[in-house]
Amino acid sequence: MKGERGRRLVHETWGDHAALLARSDHSRDGSVGLVQAKVIDVATPADPLRLVGGGVLPHVAVAYETYGELDAAGRNAVLVCHALTGSAHAAGRLGPRDVPGWWDPLIGPGKAIDTASHFVVSANVLGGCYGTTGPTSLDPETGRPYGPDFPAFGVRDMVEVQRRLLEALGVRSLKAVIGGSMGGMQALEWAATCPDLVRSFVAIAVGARHSAWAIGLNEVARRAIMADPRWAGGRYAATDQPETGLGLARAIAMLSYRSFDSLEARFGRERRALGDEGLSSSFEIASYLDYHGVKLVRRFDANTYIALTRAMDDYDVAEGRGRLDEVLGALRHKALVMGIPSDVLYPEAEQHRLVEALPNARYARLASPHGHDGFLIEFAQLAAHLRRFLAEVDA
Amino acid sequence: MKGERGRRLVHETWGDHAALLARSDHSRDGSVGLVQAKVIDVATPADPLRLVGGGVLPHVAVAYETYGELDAAGRNAVLVCHALTGSAHAAGRLGPRDVPGWWDPLIGPGKAIDTASHFVVSANVLGGCYGTTGPTSLDPETGRPYGPDFPAFGVRDMVEVQRRLLEALGVRSLKAVIGGSMGGMQALEWAATCPDLVRSFVAIAVGARHSAWAIGLNEVARRAIMADPRWAGGRYAATDQPETGLGLARAIAMLSYRSFDSLEARFGRERRALGDEGLSSSFEIASYLDYHGVKLVRRFDANTYIALTRAMDDYDVAEGRGRLDEVLGALRHKALVMGIPSDVLYPEAEQHRLVEALPNARYARLASPHGHDGFLIEFAQLAAHLRRFLAEVDA
Repeated sequence: MKGERGRRLVHETWGDHAALLARSDHSRDGSVGLVQAKVIDVATPADPLRLVGGGVLPHVAVAYETYGELDAAGRNAVLVCHALTGSAHAAGRLGPRDVPGWWDPLIGPGKAIDTASHFVVSANVLGGCYGTTGPTSLDPETGRPYGPDFPAFGVRDMVEVQRRLLEALGVRSLKAVIGGSMGGMQALEWAATCPDLVRSFVAIAVGARHSAWAIGLNEVARRAIMADPRWAGGRYAATDQPETGLGLARAIAMLSYRSFDSLEARFGRERRALGDEGLSSSFEIASYLDYHGVKLVRRFDANTYIALTRAMDDYDVAEGRGRLDEVLGALRHKALVMGIPSDVLYPEAEQHRLVEALPNARYARLASPHGHDGFLIEFAQLAAHLRRFLAEVDA
Repeated sequence: MKGERGRRLVHETWGDHAALLARSDHSRDGSVGLVQAKVIDVATPADPLRLVGGGVLPHVAVAYETYGELDAAGRNAVLVCHALTGSAHAAGRLGPRDVPGWWDPLIGPGKAIDTASHFVVSANVLGGCYGTTGPTSLDPETGRPYGPDFPAFGVRDMVEVQRRLLEALGVRSLKAVIGGSMGGMQALEWAATCPDLVRSFVAIAVGARHSAWAIGLNEVARRAIMADPRWAGGRYAATDQPETGLGLARAIAMLSYRSFDSLEARFGRERRALGDEGLSSSFEIASYLDYHGVKLVRRFDANTYIALTRAMDDYDVAEGRGRLDEVLGALRHKALVMGIPSDVLYPEAEQHRLVEALPNARYARLASPHGHDGFLIEFAQLAAHLRRFLAEVDA
């Protein structure tokens, strides 16, 4: 796959999230406007973050954004949690290129997650590479990036970091924690870890624990990264990461994020002239998968990909807590569980199981042919369900 | 992934096909016994094989096995066609280790494909690495293996090679062509290419043309191979093939051959002690995928994997023939189409489409949780459907 680094991105219109959002007609309500990333340290050597894997972090920077104002009681906060390769930038426009947030059509004044009445918080997860402490951060003990030596962490640690952030922001009770995919794991884990700090949660396109199928897909993605000679045991330079491996990992994942029908409708057996991309076939689908790999490589880090997918694979809300049905049965929060019938990665059966075991949950189906990625696409349906649910939380 | 080459296979019971067949209780009918691979050359410099891709092969060795006797009229022959990594060894026991054929429970005296009344032929496909001419064969012009220079070929070329073999064996009319997955492509293509030579066909777990989804999965598998430094543009030594890449390609494919439910039931979140396998996680599913990769590497060739998956991706029964429904509508053969509800690679919708467009086909469902691989597992159901169908062909 020579030449990948210098490859042109020939299909800027393909699944470009920013372009998708820019085209969205769900933004007729107000935007939160230009936003700024903020960073605070939520640990000190005297009060370090002790991770489930046994590691200890004396400092933990958290990159976050907030939209709207916290009320005097500190009870109108909503936490939105991003998925595997996401960031804190959930809403508004950021930076000189006015990049829209990943859920911008849903968050703003008058929108489903209404910033006129809610204080919305979005933070890059622990272990991420968008400003929160993770494998790309400098290890204070060595002065070099942690890389593969970043200590093992889990979704519970992500939640603890968010809890410290919210405490620092003056939030006393979360009205809702909302997320899809890995974000949905955080939502569930919030309810289980801090049941008294959160009044409701919304878990989208996720299950109570990672399945063998989902683990297997993450495993082959990690192996693709580690098989790249530039992986170098994770001790690559920031400017020389295993791009071929990370791109391939993303290509594998993209297939699982979409569906048979959506790829067939979009690409079928279309071909294009083979350029210098080093692809192994001339089918459009091959070019599409390659494109998404190249795009991710430009904005993400291989050690981070490995660390976060491991945290996802380890995820089991019942771990150390008892039988799954009992653990879920104890979560008495008002809950909304959403699933997508075409999702092959977290099939609807997983969401049905959640709804059956949670005592105060209801189910909402996102009708979408787009597979798992539907939770980043079906804004109109998401908006309707979220608006209704948030109106019910304190009713 | 260091150490892969020397790695022990620690789970000999996992999906070991020979072990599965040995345990099978569908072998109570007679076995065809010990079999021997035979090879003939079906091309000459004066009558070479002209490939759809434009290449020309002056000699084409075909490795094949036959079971049962050809009748005087040359009309009791049944051709069985293997899938991607299969071989001519479909029935009986082969070699000093008595390896059973891949469909041994279905082929033999008294079995569903009854060798007491049928002459069963099974051949390694063109481009394979089990005795038929392919990338591992010596190029007569250079005296070295073709490797990546083996000329491009398609499923139509596989069929032409089989046609020449059958002619040499004295077969005048094929009672049936039967195959699953890539074997099903050959069955369909036989009916389209040589409609007067074949009286019926059975296509299992396959569609009329390769989908974007299936192409995408093959694409990431090929990229895994080509990203391995030992790939070396395909010019590796036979003893030094890109094992990491080929093993990863197989691991990716294995996920698509199984199903969410079957992997969950079998592995769930089970873990094992991490040994020296270089795996990236301790989950059993990771070890299982690795195991199947190592197994394939021992018996298959990377250039062959790439060439055959390209032939599959190129497969479209209507290519150059007209509209798909019209092309299928012209195939008036008695046909049996089988599908598996848990097959995510060739979902049942593809088989339904075949049955709707073929004028003389009926559908049979293989009830199986095992996904695509069900056609190599559900022998009792396969036997019942095949026995009934073969009894109807000349009725």
